[in-house]
Amino acid sequence: MPRTITVAAAQSGPVNRRTSRAEVVERLITEMRQARSAGCDLIVYTECALTAFFAHWSIDDERELDRWFEREMPGPDTQPLFEEAARLGIGFSLGYAELATVGGRTRRFNTSILVGPDGRIVGKHRKIHLPGHAEHRPHNPFQNLEKRYFDVGDLGFQTWDAFGGTLGMSICNDRRWPESYRVLGLLGAEMILIGYNTPDNIPEYPELDRLVGFHHELCMQAGANQNAAWVVAVGKAGVEEGVSQIGLTSIIAPSGEIVAQSTTLGDELVIHTCDLDESTRYRGFLNLEQNRRPEFYGLITQQVGQRD
Amino acid sequence: MPRTITVAAAQSGPVNRRTSRAEVVERLITEMRQARSAGCDLIVYTECALTAFFAHWSIDDERELDRWFEREMPGPDTQPLFEEAARLGIGFSLGYAELATVGGRTRRFNTSILVGPDGRIVGKHRKIHLPGHAEHRPHNPFQNLEKRYFDVGDLGFQTWDAFGGTLGMSICNDRRWPESYRVLGLLGAEMILIGYNTPDNIPEYPELDRLVGFHHELCMQAGANQNAAWVVAVGKAGVEEGVSQIGLTSIIAPSGEIVAQSTTLGDELVIHTCDLDESTRYRGFLNLEQNRRPEFYGLITQQVGQRD
Repeated sequence: MPRTITVAAAQSGPVNRRTSRAEVVERLITEMRQARSAGCDLIVYTECALTAFFAHWSIDDERELDRWFEREMPGPDTQPLFEEAARLGIGFSLGYAELATVGGRTRRFNTSILVGPDGRIVGKHRKIHLPGHAEHRPHNPFQNLEKRYFDVGDLGFQTWDAFGGTLGMSICNDRRWPESYRVLGLLGAEMILIGYNTPDNIPEYPELDRLVGFHHELCMQAGANQNAAWVVAVGKAGVEEGVSQIGLTSIIAPSGEIVAQSTTLGDELVIHTCDLDESTRYRGFLNLEQNRRPEFYGLITQQVGQRD
Repeated sequence: MPRTITVAAAQSGPVNRRTSRAEVVERLITEMRQARSAGCDLIVYTECALTAFFAHWSIDDERELDRWFEREMPGPDTQPLFEEAARLGIGFSLGYAELATVGGRTRRFNTSILVGPDGRIVGKHRKIHLPGHAEHRPHNPFQNLEKRYFDVGDLGFQTWDAFGGTLGMSICNDRRWPESYRVLGLLGAEMILIGYNTPDNIPEYPELDRLVGFHHELCMQAGANQNAAWVVAVGKAGVEEGVSQIGLTSIIAPSGEIVAQSTTLGDELVIHTCDLDESTRYRGFLNLEQNRRPEFYGLITQQVGQRD
């Protein structure tokens, strides 16, 4: 029996900062119905899909900051999305800002959940690699205050048996680090779901602007291929609150080839039927068990930064 | 003062199995003179540059096997190369099969050395990731018997201060593994030298033939970019003893861009002036110290193969 997952990568156009969660969820439900009509088993939404990406501006008031976070999932505004998924029998992955209490302390995570076709949460990833900076940088046209607003994810990398395969998740900057894919690959991931909010320009490194799309694709193509996994990468696109973000929502095969990609900067479904046995075939070719030499990789966990 | 290394990546056309070391060394010296005339500081030769790539056929007699290996470096046949380098004041990197005695035991390594412009050996890498198989596979049109003929390199990954920068080496299949680049990157490598013998077809995975060039480039571009290093990759090219090998000798910038590449399948110098400060700039952008999360990478050293 073929093991396939037909996936809709649901690229999101900009979300206005004054748009309510309920309005966004309506948009997501529209896409979910389209995906189901197209025969999809799974729809993947982007990072922090319910709101504008608030890390792009400075928020000093903690109570104001908290308004961008979800205290429960599903909550009143997101419940309809879970109900529609269960009604349609389609799974989904959703990124959102999560306000959690861990060990009696309030923590803020950049989170994604995986939800089965019965509308129940199967797995949760909390973003591990937080980019940007912790201090307001008024000289920049926009901020990237993830290091201030979020705590480093405390769940590590995980995989879940779902949709007939083994799935893992990463969020945005996690995809830049080969270690993310490798740990997920070692855990058996056959498909990795990634949401992202990636500006098409880098205020402090303008000479890299022309390479933003190239680097976005390069890290994911290598990560997919070197771990024999499908990668489904879903972006926020277009100009949101003055920040121009890449589209390039992509589905990447275990060969490292981009097999489907968005062509707009708005809401757009990128659909592909992913054969998980292709992952199995590449696994056989890579043969990590026979070929890796962890006895020489020690520095990867023993040292954080580059030696000068 | 700009920190630049002008490198010649000395792609090698086929070497006949009956060609003597002395004849090959003459070819290498010709290229070395060309490189020096072009203002190069360093010429990089390929993997097992002194002979045909004998792992492509079956050799049962140990004494016959040993004839493909060097017992000393420099030895009588290679001494002229070292002398010419010192005379010209140019450094070089050379791959060769090394017969060594380690702890009283005879060991066979797939080795590269880095030689300074004074003709003295600065560093040595012994290939860590041996591809292929240990048993003769008569059904295949050619063999890849590296797992039989070579021992796993026992020196780990290292870097050396040379040519005004920090240089590391990898050999052929080492380049397929993101761990190789990462360990070298953590050691501060600003330039990674790689020789390879890569057939353009894969007997047991013919469906991957069309992707050989793509995968060759993908792993190196990602490795360069994710570790802010220059990569200089030098191939054996053309049909050697019935085995058709890729050219695609490449110089890759820390941006991940291929900045120079061979256009033939024969002896060809690919020359580029590499600015090591470009590595420094990318290092600042990556900021491994601030952004890596080794506490979540444990599986990379704790587990060898993929979990089913």
